[in-house]
Amino acid sequence: MANILHRIGIKSSSLDDVYRALTTRDGLAGWWTEDTEGEGNQVGDIIKFRFGAGGFDMKVSELKSPAHVTWEVVAGHEEWIGTRINWELKQEGDYIIVLFKHLDWREPVEFMHHCSTKWALFLMSLKSLIEQGKGAPNPYDVKIDNWN
Amino acid sequence: MANILHRIGIKSSSLDDVYRALTTRDGLAGWWTEDTEGEGNQVGDIIKFRFGAGGFDMKVSELKSPAHVTWEVVAGHEEWIGTRINWELKQEGDYIIVLFKHLDWREPVEFMHHCSTKWALFLMSLKSLIEQGKGAPNPYDVKIDNWN
Repeated sequence: MANILHRIGIKSSSLDDVYRALTTRDGLAGWWTEDTEGEGNQVGDIIKFRFGAGGFDMKVSELKSPAHVTWEVVAGHEEWIGTRINWELKQEGDYIIVLFKHLDWREPVEFMHHCSTKWALFLMSLKSLIEQGKGAPNPYDVKIDNWN
Repeated sequence: MANILHRIGIKSSSLDDVYRALTTRDGLAGWWTEDTEGEGNQVGDIIKFRFGAGGFDMKVSELKSPAHVTWEVVAGHEEWIGTRINWELKQEGDYIIVLFKHLDWREPVEFMHHCSTKWALFLMSLKSLIEQGKGAPNPYDVKIDNWN
């Protein structure tokens, strides 16, 4: 199994603000993709994320407000199905630290390399949403290569 | 062992330009850190990369111009020593695709999460250097968290 890991720090003293950006439709649409359906604030919720070329359905599998969120990918790109996305939040000084993990890729395929870089830029979009009030969700996301 | 993987696409038709940015002092100083010493165009070369808080010495262990570069980390942060950094370049349509791997982390420590995100942004700096003529190397690099 192969994993994507990232860490960002968001200048904020409100864990709740960051947690909301991961568990509500409006929060998620503000940094990942504007085409988001569903809320993510109850275990068992299904959130539908859509992009130009496809998308993902996530089932919320674990929640501990305001510090822990886990999603399971239940539909979408074949390589993503069965993988898990885990978020851990903690305060360190002036920053909310976000530890991000996209776990359990079966193989470290080229698409995984792409997704790793895209996640980094979407995390920077989340940082910008909280710090500046504006993220760069799809379709305004930073393009990194010939796939997106 | 844990690995960091990334993929970017650089709008260019010159593999040589990208290869030079990975194997010459001026190229490396243009996207990773301005405080770079040494060339990286011979197997066995040592390149010294310095940042405010420390740095890394890399030994060039494999080269196949203009498509393949591998470095071994021989000095620096303890977590990095013994890890390897591998670059594969290929042309796909209008893009040079860069497949990046930072291999053989002993443990997926929090610092690895940080480095994964920083690598993504330094790769975007490499993309910008080739496409726009200007990267964002240290000390002008994009800050991602309370560590850098």
